[in-house]
This record gives sequence, C-alpha cells and structure tokens, in this order.
Amino acid sequence: MTSRTLDIHQGLLDKNERLAQDLRRRFETAGVYGVNLVSSPGTGKTTFLERTLSMLVEAGFGVAALVGDLATENDARRLARSGAPVRQIVTAGMCHLEAQMIASHLEGWDLATLDFLFIENVGNLVCPSNYDLGEAMRVVLLSVTEGEDKPLKYPPMFNSANLAVITKLDLAVAAEFNRAEAHANIQAVCPGVPILETSAKTGQGMKEWLDFLVNQRKNQGL
Amino acid sequence: MTSRTLDIHQGLLDKNERLAQDLRRRFETAGVYGVNLVSSPGTGKTTFLERTLSMLVEAGFGVAALVGDLATENDARRLARSGAPVRQIVTAGMCHLEAQMIASHLEGWDLATLDFLFIENVGNLVCPSNYDLGEAMRVVLLSVTEGEDKPLKYPPMFNSANLAVITKLDLAVAAEFNRAEAHANIQAVCPGVPILETSAKTGQGMKEWLDFLVNQRKNQGL
Repeated sequence: MTSRTLDIHQGLLDKNERLAQDLRRRFETAGVYGVNLVSSPGTGKTTFLERTLSMLVEAGFGVAALVGDLATENDARRLARSGAPVRQIVTAGMCHLEAQMIASHLEGWDLATLDFLFIENVGNLVCPSNYDLGEAMRVVLLSVTEGEDKPLKYPPMFNSANLAVITKLDLAVAAEFNRAEAHANIQAVCPGVPILETSAKTGQGMKEWLDFLVNQRKNQGL
Repeated sequence: MTSRTLDIHQGLLDKNERLAQDLRRRFETAGVYGVNLVSSPGTGKTTFLERTLSMLVEAGFGVAALVGDLATENDARRLARSGAPVRQIVTAGMCHLEAQMIASHLEGWDLATLDFLFIENVGNLVCPSNYDLGEAMRVVLLSVTEGEDKPLKYPPMFNSANLAVITKLDLAVAAEFNRAEAHANIQAVCPGVPILETSAKTGQGMKEWLDFLVNQRKNQGL
C-alpha cells in the first residue's frame, strides 16, 4: 500500500473509533452490556449464540442480537428461534462489521429494555480485530477442530479479546484436541485472558459462560 | 468507504491483476502448474498440502510451496518435512496474499525444474477471493466440521474456485456432516464446480486428488 492509501485507511479506522465510542456511551447509559463474538467461519458462533440467547431469555434477561454475514439471512432466522429480537446485517462482501453498521441496525430498538446486546461478527480471524463496535467485551471463539496453533498464527484477534471460548468440546476426542497446547498458545498471545470450554451441543460449560457474563455485567455497574 | 477510497482500492486491485498476469505467463513458460489453496483458518490446508507434497515428491514430480500466515514460520517447517522446497510468507497482519508477494518469494528458485507450485493462502474465507496470484487453479477447502452453509455465506470465495475439496472426512460422522447439503450448497454458488472428498489423515480421496491435479496440468499442455 502507498502512504496515501495508509492515510485514508487510518482515517476510516479513526472514524470507526469515534462512532464506537459513541455507541459505548449509549450502551452504558442504557445499561446494555455489549458482547462482540469473533472467530473463523465454522467455529460454531451461531449455535453458541442461539443457546446463549435461549438461556438468557429463560432466565428473564432482556437480550437482542445483531448478526453479520456477507450474504443470506439464515443466521438471523436461526437465532430468532430463541425468542430474542434479532437483526441480520448483510455486509455485501465486506469482511468485517463496523460501528456505523451497528448504529444503523439499532434503530427502533429501545435499548433501555435490554440487559445484553450480542453482535456476531463476520467469520474472519483477521479483519474484525481492527474494528471496535462499542462492545464491553470481545469474545474470540476457537473450536477444538481448528488446530491448537491458531492463536499463534492470528495474534491480533486473540490479543484483542477479553475472553477466549473453546467450542465444540464434544468433538475433542475425535479431533485429538490438545487442551494444554491450546491453552498455552492462547496465553502466549494474550497473557492472563480467561478461557472457558464449552459445547453448545451438549450444554457443557454453558452455565459457567452465563455466570461469567452476568458477573461481568455486574462488575460494570450495569 | 468514500469514492476516493474505492478508487484507490480499485487501483491496487488493478495493479495486482497486472502482476498476476505476468506471473501466469512466467509459470506457463516454465511449465509450472500453479495451485492457490484458500479456506477458513483450521480447515486443514497445511495437513492436506503436506500430504500432497509428499505424494508428488514420491511420484517424481518437481514441486515447491509458498505458505502465507500473519505470523510464525510453523507451516513452512511442517511442509518442509515433505522434502519439497518451501518458503514462508509472513504477511505481518495482512489478511491475504498478493501477486507481488509471490513474485518476490520466487527469487532464486529455478521454475524450469518445477512441475507444480502450491500457494497456501492466509486462512480467510473473504479477502483472498479478490486477489489473483497467477495460479492455474484455485482450490477452496471446506472441512466437515465447519457447517454445510459456508458456501452460501461466503459466496465470492466459493464462486471464484475451480475446485472444491471437502476435508477431514474422518470426522464426518462425529460432526454429523450432511454430505448432500454441502454438495448442493457448493453447486448453488458455483454451478458445475468439481468436488472432491478427502481425509489427509487417513489418505481417503488423496489419490483421486493427485490424479485430478496431474490431469489438469496435462490438459494445460504443460
């Protein structure tokens, strides 16, 4: 890239940063805890989120979700089965979500009725790391089938996360998942980051994840 | 993005296209069949390529590989076990490979001694679709654990591929892989594209893949 291109790219990032800070203030004022879910395609974000929404709805929390994809509204339909309000953001080829897309898709929702807002980012372990969406917590998901080396190979995404969730634990034996190595690699890239292990299919670890979420929200004074 | 940003982005793509055409002519003149492997992170590109290189070396072909990652030289080390010459391209945060990176990493290699050059792209199901690397064949990999909906959700990548390879077939039962649905979704996005099913772990489908490769090279008159 030329320096002129880099300048313009930096300008776009700065603009996103300002919009994200506006969103963050709106969320805090309304008492909404924002969660940005990032991962490779196929890590199981949608299944994980569907179960999370159902459990939170059942526990009486006000929840909503925005879900980003290059194409299709499939994920919004799947997530809506939880009973929570869900909107699809179709990026039309763009490789990540930006703060402006979040802001425009919140229109008409009364944030004051929500306790949690989940944002499922486009499946991409590179580009979304640069874009703050005003979230309180960024969660990177890593499935047991992807290979334990992914944190080392995609450091910006793992390094920018506030929590790492290992998914598809039900496939750990079949995939010969090396738990110690995965944990060590995550910690090497993002020292001290909490790690949870889950299977949205069997429910394993999902209660711990919900407890963690509710506790983080409380710690923010929301 | 502003129209000025779009113009500059288009300019970069045009420049890549020219460099890719130069590479394509160089490969054809030298009798090298170029293969660009693209997929999500964790689809098993490196394991698939390691086995491919070993089998081609054993069969007496001249092969080499370039492998792209944001960070680490781990993959080049793994692939070098095949006996083929391998070079790592560290993109330092960039989400895809570009033709210029290929050209600069070929320096010192005698292309005339090669029958095949493999390029393992950065794991990313979005951005690499825009960047021609001068390859004769683009292969998109999809693992049985990723979900059969991925072609519908990432159409540009699947649509730009000349071959789709389903990987990790050994995990198909554990992952409850729906073969018919995966095939239908690939064909919906890229009608007529050939599909191969493989497991680099058990070797299933690898001979068919090699036969396909050798045949495609012959069809090009190389």
